[in-house]
Amino acid sequence: MIAGIIGATGYVGAELVRLLAGHPNIRSLALASVSFEGERMDYIYPNLFRRVRTLLIQADAVLEVAQVVFVALPSGVGESYAKRCMEKGIPCIDLSADFRFDDDEATFRAWYGKPFVYPELRNHSVYGLPELNREKIKALRASGPVIIGNPGCYPTAASLGAYPALALGLAGSGTIIVDAASGITGGGREPSRAFHYPECADALAPYKVGCHRHTPEISRNFTFMRTGDGKQREEGPSLIFTPHLAPMNRGILSTTYIPLSDAWQVKVPRTENPRPPVAEVMDQGAVIRSRYATFYRDEPFVRVLPAERIAATNRVRQSNYCDISIHLDQTGSTLIVVTAIDNMVKGAAGQAVQNMNIIFGFDESTGLSAIPAAF
Amino acid sequence: MIAGIIGATGYVGAELVRLLAGHPNIRSLALASVSFEGERMDYIYPNLFRRVRTLLIQADAVLEVAQVVFVALPSGVGESYAKRCMEKGIPCIDLSADFRFDDDEATFRAWYGKPFVYPELRNHSVYGLPELNREKIKALRASGPVIIGNPGCYPTAASLGAYPALALGLAGSGTIIVDAASGITGGGREPSRAFHYPECADALAPYKVGCHRHTPEISRNFTFMRTGDGKQREEGPSLIFTPHLAPMNRGILSTTYIPLSDAWQVKVPRTENPRPPVAEVMDQGAVIRSRYATFYRDEPFVRVLPAERIAATNRVRQSNYCDISIHLDQTGSTLIVVTAIDNMVKGAAGQAVQNMNIIFGFDESTGLSAIPAAF
Amino acid sequence: MIAGIIGATGYVGAELVRLLAGHPNIRSLALASVSFEGERMDYIYPNLFRRVRTLLIQADAVLEVAQVVFVALPSGVGESYAKRCMEKGIPCIDLSADFRFDDDEATFRAWYGKPFVYPELRNHSVYGLPELNREKIKALRASGPVIIGNPGCYPTAASLGAYPALALGLAGSGTIIVDAASGITGGGREPSRAFHYPECADALAPYKVGCHRHTPEISRNFTFMRTGDGKQREEGPSLIFTPHLAPMNRGILSTTYIPLSDAWQVKVPRTENPRPPVAEVMDQGAVIRSRYATFYRDEPFVRVLPAERIAATNRVRQSNYCDISIHLDQTGSTLIVVTAIDNMVKGAAGQAVQNMNIIFGFDESTGLSAIPAAF
Amino acid sequence: MIAGIIGATGYVGAELVRLLAGHPNIRSLALASVSFEGERMDYIYPNLFRRVRTLLIQADAVLEVAQVVFVALPSGVGESYAKRCMEKGIPCIDLSADFRFDDDEATFRAWYGKPFVYPELRNHSVYGLPELNREKIKALRASGPVIIGNPGCYPTAASLGAYPALALGLAGSGTIIVDAASGITGGGREPSRAFHYPECADALAPYKVGCHRHTPEISRNFTFMRTGDGKQREEGPSLIFTPHLAPMNRGILSTTYIPLSDAWQVKVPRTENPRPPVAEVMDQGAVIRSRYATFYRDEPFVRVLPAERIAATNRVRQSNYCDISIHLDQTGSTLIVVTAIDNMVKGAAGQAVQNMNIIFGFDESTGLSAIPAAF
Repeated sequence: MIAGIIGATGYVGAELVRLLAGHPNIRSLALASVSFEGERMDYIYPNLFRRVRTLLIQADAVLEVAQVVFVALPSGVGESYAKRCMEKGIPCIDLSADFRFDDDEATFRAWYGKPFVYPELRNHSVYGLPELNREKIKALRASGPVIIGNPGCYPTAASLGAYPALALGLAGSGTIIVDAASGITGGGREPSRAFHYPECADALAPYKVGCHRHTPEISRNFTFMRTGDGKQREEGPSLIFTPHLAPMNRGILSTTYIPLSDAWQVKVPRTENPRPPVAEVMDQGAVIRSRYATFYRDEPFVRVLPAERIAATNRVRQSNYCDISIHLDQTGSTLIVVTAIDNMVKGAAGQAVQNMNIIFGFDESTGLSAIPAAF
Repeated sequence: MIAGIIGATGYVGAELVRLLAGHPNIRSLALASVSFEGERMDYIYPNLFRRVRTLLIQADAVLEVAQVVFVALPSGVGESYAKRCMEKGIPCIDLSADFRFDDDEATFRAWYGKPFVYPELRNHSVYGLPELNREKIKALRASGPVIIGNPGCYPTAASLGAYPALALGLAGSGTIIVDAASGITGGGREPSRAFHYPECADALAPYKVGCHRHTPEISRNFTFMRTGDGKQREEGPSLIFTPHLAPMNRGILSTTYIPLSDAWQVKVPRTENPRPPVAEVMDQGAVIRSRYATFYRDEPFVRVLPAERIAATNRVRQSNYCDISIHLDQTGSTLIVVTAIDNMVKGAAGQAVQNMNIIFGFDESTGLSAIPAAF
Repeated sequence: MIAGIIGATGYVGAELVRLLAGHPNIRSLALASVSFEGERMDYIYPNLFRRVRTLLIQADAVLEVAQVVFVALPSGVGESYAKRCMEKGIPCIDLSADFRFDDDEATFRAWYGKPFVYPELRNHSVYGLPELNREKIKALRASGPVIIGNPGCYPTAASLGAYPALALGLAGSGTIIVDAASGITGGGREPSRAFHYPECADALAPYKVGCHRHTPEISRNFTFMRTGDGKQREEGPSLIFTPHLAPMNRGILSTTYIPLSDAWQVKVPRTENPRPPVAEVMDQGAVIRSRYATFYRDEPFVRVLPAERIAATNRVRQSNYCDISIHLDQTGSTLIVVTAIDNMVKGAAGQAVQNMNIIFGFDESTGLSAIPAAF
Repeated sequence: MIAGIIGATGYVGAELVRLLAGHPNIRSLALASVSFEGERMDYIYPNLFRRVRTLLIQADAVLEVAQVVFVALPSGVGESYAKRCMEKGIPCIDLSADFRFDDDEATFRAWYGKPFVYPELRNHSVYGLPELNREKIKALRASGPVIIGNPGCYPTAASLGAYPALALGLAGSGTIIVDAASGITGGGREPSRAFHYPECADALAPYKVGCHRHTPEISRNFTFMRTGDGKQREEGPSLIFTPHLAPMNRGILSTTYIPLSDAWQVKVPRTENPRPPVAEVMDQGAVIRSRYATFYRDEPFVRVLPAERIAATNRVRQSNYCDISIHLDQTGSTLIVVTAIDNMVKGAAGQAVQNMNIIFGFDESTGLSAIPAAF
C-alpha cells in the first residue's frame, strides 16, 4: 500500500514518515511539501539519511498514487484535500482540528475563527480517538471512504485520563481541571521566539491560560464520555484547561482533577489542618484504579499503572502508549488522574497510524510496537 | 557582623553562602558541616573558588562566634541549635519545617512523624513569610532573640499567589487547587535515583500526589490569610496540592485555581461547548490584577505582571522576586494565579536573608538586589 | 532462540532488553540481576511495563537456558561467565573491557589494575567491531563457540571515524587527537554526585583528561587499522584522547584530528594570519569524503554524510548508525573527522546485537532497523 | 555617569544592561534599539521588569547624553558610531569584530567579507583583552578617547588558556588545536532553525568546521602572546579551531592542545600501547600549573585551578571568571589546557564592563563581583 502525506516536512509529517517507513503494510510513501518540493526528504531531515530518499512532490501527485492520505497541515487549509480524497474514494486522516468537531461548526468557528469550507464532509468524518470511537470508525468505513479527525495532543491525554471516571459515574458535577504540560516539539518546526532555545531551556510557564483551542475539544469529549451519545442531557461539569510549556522535546503530562460524585467520595472527618491520607482514602484509590484497569483491559496502548507508580513522560517516549496513574487527594473528594503520552506519537502521528490500522483492518498495533526506551 | 550557617554544604547552605558572602553587612561567615569538617568551603563548591576560603568547622564553634545563625538541616535535627541560639540570645533562622507550624504540634507530628523536641521554643518563633508576618517578626524581635521558621518553597509560591484573593474576599468556599512544579535542586545535594540525570532529564511527572508535606503549611497559610488571625471561623476551602518535578535546575512554578466568591464571578451564559473568554471575563481579570497590584504595591520582591504577561520561572532565576500573573478561566468562575519564584532564593536562602534583614533593621533588599538574567 | 543477559538491570542491560525484546529471532529472554533477583523487569524499568514481564533470576539459571549470553557487568567480574559459556558451548558477548585487548594482558593490567583471570579464554575471543573484524568473528565462530569483546563507546566512534584514513594511508605520522563527548547515560544507572542532575545540567567539562581507560583501546585499534595485522611495524602516531561529559542523555560525538600524510596534504601558502579555506582545500575534502564513502559502501550502519552536513548526536539517537562527516582544517594539513553514535546502541547494546546477528548468521540489521527520530 | 548602549535589545545588549544597572558608578542608562524604539526595556525583557524601565531611544539620542558608549551590533554596522564617539571625545567599546584586528584590514576582509569603513579609527583603537593589553589600553586612553575592540568569546577562552604557555616558552612549534564548545545564547536572540529548541536540545555537534571567523583572532592573539609584539619573527605554530554547539544556555569550554617545546616535554619511553601517565608526567603537570598560577597571580578574574580539578562551564556561570585547568597527555608531549568562561560575561558583556572600568580608572572588579552560583 502507498501512503501519502501532505505536509510531510513539518514535525508531525516527519514523525509520520518515520512511523510509516517502518510499517510492514506500507510499501512506499508519497510525500508532498510546498516548502521543499523537489528535494529529497532525507536532505531536509538528516536523521532519515539513506532511509527515506523519497522526493518531495506536489500534493496533486500524492493524491494520484496514494491509497491512504495523511494531511498534516494547519487547521483550515486541509479541507480541500479531504474533499478530493472523498471524491477519489481514499480514506483521509486529517491531523488538524478541522474534523474534530463533527458538525458543530459554531464551536469550530468560535475558537478557530473560520467556518467549515465543505460542511457536507462531516457526513463522512469521525473523531479518531480509537478508545472512544473504534466502532464508529469501523462502521463509517464499512459504508465508504472515511475522514478521520485525528485528536489533538492535549485532548488525547486528558480524555483518556477522564474517560472511565466519566463513563462509570465516578465523576460528580463539579468543575474538572486539566493542568497539563507539553514538550516543545508541540510548537512545530517553524522557529519563533517562544521556542528559541535560550528562551525555553531551564524554564517552565503556562501559556494561553483560559483560552487554548483544545478547551472545547476536551470539553466535548468529556460530555460524550459521560452521556454516551454526546447529548448534554443535564448541566454537565465545567472544564478548566491550562497548558504549560516544559523544557523537554517530547511528551504531554496531564494532571486532571475530577471531583468525585457523592457515592464515590470518602468522607474524611474535617480537621483544622489537613491530615495525610487515611487508609480509607488509599483503599478507595485502589478500587478506582482497579475499575480503570478493567475499563481499559483490552486496549493495546493504554497502561493503567500499579499503585506505587506515577505516570511520567519519559516512560512513554517514542511509543504510542498512554500511561495513566490514579490518585486521590487527602480529603478523599477528588480523583487526580495523571496521564502521560508522547505528544508526537499517541498525541499525533502514532494515533493517526492507529486509525489507519483500524480503517484497513490491520492489527491495531502494526507498526506501533516500539518499546519505549528507559532514557 | 558574623553570620553562621549550620549545614553549610547542602544546596541551601551553599546558596546562603553565596548570598551572604555578597551581603554588605556581613563581615564574615562561620560555616559548619558534619560531612566536610576541616575542609575549605571552596574545595567542596568549586564555583566559590578563591571567593569563600572559609574552613568548615563544628557547629559548636559557629555558635561561639556568630551574631545570627542559619540552620539548614533536615526537619527534626535542628531544634537543639535553635535552643542554644535562644540561650545565647542570638537570632536563629531555621530553614527546615520545625518552626513553620507555630504551636500546632499535631499537624507537625501527623506529617513529619515526630514531636516537637522543645515545644516551648514556639514562644520565640514566628513563621517567616515577610509579606504576611513582617510586623509579627519585628514585634517578636523587639522583645528578644527570635526564631524564624523559614517557609517552604512551594508554600511561598502558593501563598503569595493566593494571599490577595483570600484577604480581599475574592475567593469563594470551593476547593483551591495548587498545581506546582519544582526544579531539581529542590531535591538537595545528595545523589539518588530520582535525581540522577538520565532519570529526570527531558521528563515531567508529579510526585507525592495527595501526600506532600507542604500541604498543611499551604493550607494553614490560606486560613491565616483569609481570616487574619489564623482561627478558622467557618468551614474554609479545602486544599489540593500536587507537586511535579520539572527538568530544570531552579524554579518553582505554581498554577493555583481559586474558585471566585459569588460576588466576584462573571456570569457567562452557559453554552453546550465552551466559548472563548468574552470581554466581561477579560475585564474582570483586569480588575483583579489591579487589586493584586495595589495589595502588593509596597512589597520589594513581589511583581504583579501586566495583562499580556504570564509568570515564568526563568524570569526570576537567581533573584528573590516572586512574579505573579492573573488570569480567569473562560467561564469567569475561577481565578487562575500563576506564581514563579526561584526555589533556592525566594523559596529558601533569599527569603532567609530577607528575614535576617528584617530582624536587624537593614533595608529588606540588602544583599538581595540581583537582577535576574534574561537567560 | 533464548537470549540471556547477566546484569540485566544496569543501563546497558536495560537497553539490551529493549532491543532483544523486539528482535524477531529471539523468542524469549532470560534475565539475571543480583540487585533485583525475584522482581519483574518491568517493575524495575517502568518504560517496559506490560512489555517485558520477565522475572529476574540468578545467573546460573540464565546459563541453563540461554543459547546466547550477554554479560553486562563491570570489567573483571564477568570472565567466569564467559568461561562457563565456553564450557557449555554457548556464544558469549561481553560488554566489559575484559576481552577487548586480545592477549595483551600487560595493557589490560596497566589500565584496569587487574590481571586476566582466565587468560586461555583469549583463544576463543575476538574484538567485536564488525566493520573491522567481521570476518574474524565468523571464522572463529565456525570453529566453535566464541567470546565477543564488545567495543567501548568512545573507541567505536573514534575508530570508525579514523579507519579509512588509517587503512588508506591518508594519515601521516603525527599525533592523532580524539576530542570526544558523551551523554550522561554513559555513567550508568548508579546515582553519584557527578551524574546528579543539578551538577551536570547546563554544564560541559572534560573528565579523566590524559588518563581515560579507553585510550589504549583506541590506540590499539588505530594500529590494527593502519597495519592490517596489529603489529606496529614502525613508530606509529601517538594518540591523545580527551572525553567530555555533555548535558544530554544519549550520544557520543567524536571530533578527531588526523594529520594528513605528505601526499594528502594540500600545500596552502602560509600567510601571517590564517585565511579561510581555499578551493583546493575544499576539493581535497571532497576527495577524501568520497574515499570514505567508498570504503564504507557496504556497511549497513555507517553513514558518510554529504559535504554540507556535519555529524550530530541527535541524528542517530536510538539507532545503530554511526554518522561520519569529513572536513579539512583551513591549512589543508589536518583531516577533521566528526563521528556521532548513540552511546547505548552502536556504542554498547546495539553493537552487541549486531555481533549476535553475525554469530548466528542473521542479517546484520535484524532487530536494529529503527529509524532515528528527528527530535 | 551615563552609559549608552547601541543595540540594547540583542542578547549581548541585554546582558550589558543587567551588569551596568548594577554597577555603582553608572547613574543611568541610555539605550538604543532600532527594533523596539519607543518601548520600555523591561517590556522587551520581562526579567528586567520594574528594574530597568528605561525607554528605548534612537542611537543619536544616546550619543548626546552618554559618557561611555557600548556598541552591540553585528560586525560592519557599528564603525560609524565609533567614529562619532571619537568626534565627541567619548570612549567607545565595540563588541563586534570591527576593531579586533588593529590595522590588519586584509585579515578582516578575508573573513568578514568587507573592508574597514574608517581605517583611520584604528589609530585610536586597541584590542580589549585586559590580561594581554591592560597597559596598552591605559596608555591609549591617557592620550584621548579610545575605541575598545572587545574580544570574541572563543578567542577570550582560548587565548587566556594558551597565554602563559606561549609567553613562557612552554609551547613548541607544532600545531595548536582549540576544540571548543559554546552555549546556545552565543547564537543571539534571533530565532532560527539552528537554535530552535527541538533541534539543539539533547544534541551536540560542531559547526563551521575549519572556517569559523574566530580563527584569525585566536591565531593573531597566539602570535602576540608568543612574540610580545605581534610580529611573527619565525614560522609560528598553526592553529586549528573547531567550535561546537552544546545544549546549554551559557558557557564556553575550550580544550586546547599545545605541543610542548622540547625542553618542556617529558620523555616517556614508548610502549606498544599507551600506558597511564607516569609520575614524571604528573610532576611536570604540577610544575606547569604552578607557572600558570604565578603568571596570573594578580589577575582578578583568572582562576588557575588546583591539580584535582577540571574547569567546567557551570562553575563560572553568570560571573566574569575564566577558570583554567592544566593537564598533560599520557606521553608527556602535549599540554592540555581546559578553559571555562561564561560566554555572555567574560566572553562579551562582562569583559566590556571590565574594559570600561580600566578606561575610567575604576577598580577592575567594580560591578563584576558576582559569585557564580553552584547550580
